[in-house]
Amino acid sequence: MKIYANELKNYFNQEIEFSGFVDNIRNLQWVQFVILRDQTGKVQVTIEKSEDQNKEMVEIINNLPLESTIKITGKVVEAPKVKLNGIEIIPSKIEVTSKSLDELPFNFKDLNNVNLDTRLDYRFIDLRNEKNVFMYQVQSTLIKYLREYLYEHKFTEIHTPKLLGAASESGSEVFEVKYFDRSAYLAQSPQFYKQMAIAAGFGNVFEVAPCFRAENSNTSRHATEFTSFDLEFSYINSFHDVMNLEAEMLTYALTKLKEELGPKIKEVFGQEIIIPKLPFPTMSLADIYKELEERYGYKVPDEEKTDMTTEAERLSYKLAQDKFNHEFLFVTDFPADKRAFYHMRNEDGILQGYDLIWRGVEITSGAQREHRYEEICKNAQEKGLKDDVKFYLEFFKYGCPPHGGFAIGVDRLTMLLLNIPSVKETEFLFRGPNRLNP
Amino acid sequence: MKIYANELKNYFNQEIEFSGFVDNIRNLQWVQFVILRDQTGKVQVTIEKSEDQNKEMVEIINNLPLESTIKITGKVVEAPKVKLNGIEIIPSKIEVTSKSLDELPFNFKDLNNVNLDTRLDYRFIDLRNEKNVFMYQVQSTLIKYLREYLYEHKFTEIHTPKLLGAASESGSEVFEVKYFDRSAYLAQSPQFYKQMAIAAGFGNVFEVAPCFRAENSNTSRHATEFTSFDLEFSYINSFHDVMNLEAEMLTYALTKLKEELGPKIKEVFGQEIIIPKLPFPTMSLADIYKELEERYGYKVPDEEKTDMTTEAERLSYKLAQDKFNHEFLFVTDFPADKRAFYHMRNEDGILQGYDLIWRGVEITSGAQREHRYEEICKNAQEKGLKDDVKFYLEFFKYGCPPHGGFAIGVDRLTMLLLNIPSVKETEFLFRGPNRLNP
Repeated sequence: MKIYANELKNYFNQEIEFSGFVDNIRNLQWVQFVILRDQTGKVQVTIEKSEDQNKEMVEIINNLPLESTIKITGKVVEAPKVKLNGIEIIPSKIEVTSKSLDELPFNFKDLNNVNLDTRLDYRFIDLRNEKNVFMYQVQSTLIKYLREYLYEHKFTEIHTPKLLGAASESGSEVFEVKYFDRSAYLAQSPQFYKQMAIAAGFGNVFEVAPCFRAENSNTSRHATEFTSFDLEFSYINSFHDVMNLEAEMLTYALTKLKEELGPKIKEVFGQEIIIPKLPFPTMSLADIYKELEERYGYKVPDEEKTDMTTEAERLSYKLAQDKFNHEFLFVTDFPADKRAFYHMRNEDGILQGYDLIWRGVEITSGAQREHRYEEICKNAQEKGLKDDVKFYLEFFKYGCPPHGGFAIGVDRLTMLLLNIPSVKETEFLFRGPNRLNP
Repeated sequence: MKIYANELKNYFNQEIEFSGFVDNIRNLQWVQFVILRDQTGKVQVTIEKSEDQNKEMVEIINNLPLESTIKITGKVVEAPKVKLNGIEIIPSKIEVTSKSLDELPFNFKDLNNVNLDTRLDYRFIDLRNEKNVFMYQVQSTLIKYLREYLYEHKFTEIHTPKLLGAASESGSEVFEVKYFDRSAYLAQSPQFYKQMAIAAGFGNVFEVAPCFRAENSNTSRHATEFTSFDLEFSYINSFHDVMNLEAEMLTYALTKLKEELGPKIKEVFGQEIIIPKLPFPTMSLADIYKELEERYGYKVPDEEKTDMTTEAERLSYKLAQDKFNHEFLFVTDFPADKRAFYHMRNEDGILQGYDLIWRGVEITSGAQREHRYEEICKNAQEKGLKDDVKFYLEFFKYGCPPHGGFAIGVDRLTMLLLNIPSVKETEFLFRGPNRLNP
């Protein structure tokens, strides 16, 4: 495998090969400084023009557009004066592996003045920005540790179908697919199939996969396609077990992430990873509205007090900090009638579930699921669901353990972790009602 | 978290809670034996009928259908005479957490005589079979280790869009989606977007995600939706680097899988995990056909000798074993003109790529990709591709490192590993031209 920029200090005084993008060239009278970039960092390559054997290399660099890629052979030298980590490579050979043929559509090193649509049109250039390359390394590492926690707790990864025979969960926001001589529909979530695994006795399952929502809305938090980190597990006593697992899992992953990438996240994004304390604070919806009014004078309109308003979510960050010195806040005791039929409710119609707010944005809805056949049938009927969910109701007919779960939007999580304004920037390639390309 | 069946030996003489499906009941004159099952195994619960305090429990068990779920409180006891691991639980309390309400549509413990379509119709019952529950634990563990290898080699996980604006890779086998007032198409593979990440300087990327193929074919190896383990990496010298990485990654994962689950795989599936030797043997397509004829009398029809026939794949397992004492075989030197335009070829039109055959079935096509702008444009033009791939061709205009990659079908890999006859049984929920449900 390649030697990476952040490994070069292990190769002092050795002859190595190094490959990368030509990030910058300073062509001075007596010397050429070429900065090479790979996904781990940058290194300076120094070519003395006076030396005879360098003639060919100097000529190559003279004619090389930035953003071309090259492979050099050279010696790694300790050079305390070099700003880039005190390292330089003195090359003996340069091979051009690809040439940049055109002027870049914009300067990806300074995206502040570039229109977001232009950036998304040329996403492969936009992503060359150091922050963007690193953002995905952070996301990948975070998900690695979320999974690691689950592996250690006997979770099995599943891959559920995205092509469905019926638009079951909620018909209006589902994409229709031409499927040979009939129609199929794209999964809005793996909810029913996670629960199928539970009914099959898989115990604990998770899936990281795309979800599709035909919502014609444009916000910083919505997309027609997004990556969902979904899990479901069996033999719970109440939805508090679900909350506890989520809090533990997030704390585990953030702790590990900070160990691995904390300093670089601080350097590149100016963000401190704050390790939350366990247990996370929990408040009922009614108590939150009460305190938001008392503390900050926010009064929720009567007709909206059955759920968290966007403004209440935003203010609840302040509340979580002021009251609990915490970044997370569980909200409980929602009225169940506005929620999906598969959530468990108690006799008073209170949802046996929760929302989790992080930094003022909802990242999860979790719940105990209704696993009692009579109850789930009744709930489905009340919502007017019938034939389309018939296959799902069957799951609960032949024994099914009490279970619960939740989903986290990966792109939204990344947005909040790194303080990025929109999921349009954290999705690898954003998809919205007006954007299907590239 | 729950205590699992395979952990009970750590709790001898302790009072614990244990939950599971009621796998079996033997209701004798003086005693009830209840076998409980979770995803890790089974345990015997023993209830003496003579004891007064057991009256209520005996009554519960008398009225309990199999496959209900219960939670018991009881003492874990070492019981050498008990066949199930020499353990039994003496309960003091039983709570029924769900009741099986109907007779099961078939006996999931013996699937030999159950029609595959019936099994798939009731997949949530079918999956209760011990082999099936364990199959996904094996798959999940295998993928865990494949990923682990990649994390250690600086790969970043990406999540590329499945909704595309154009049917780019090959128009005929793509599903069309109604996308607001226009059409979208489902991704057949993440190929173009993996390469976008390469052009963006991500270095090494992988993705585990669904792929969609509108193929109207019914074989044991094809599905309209399947899970693909895809990767792509930069700065390679030739496609041999891709072969080496794949061989190393598979060997790493199989070694780790054997350590973790080898004995149970042997017990449940009768399959020995064979750790391959590195490097994997490699033969050219022409040499394979020569030896298949010499050794086994197989003569390929002239018009089919530009690719491996299904029969040649099958026989190549024997060849790999006889000639190399190996389970894997790399096949190289395919003519490039039948392959996708993004594969690199040499001046003689030979593909700079390979197929990997495992146990007589192709599990991968890998290659160095064409990263040179002029060449990739020429290749696309030769295939008659134009507007639909224009966005893709742009990726190579502004510098793009030499790179290569491959994809492995997760369901096919599981099928071969555990000697299961068809991907219809290894997919969580199979999707084919005639199957979209449940």
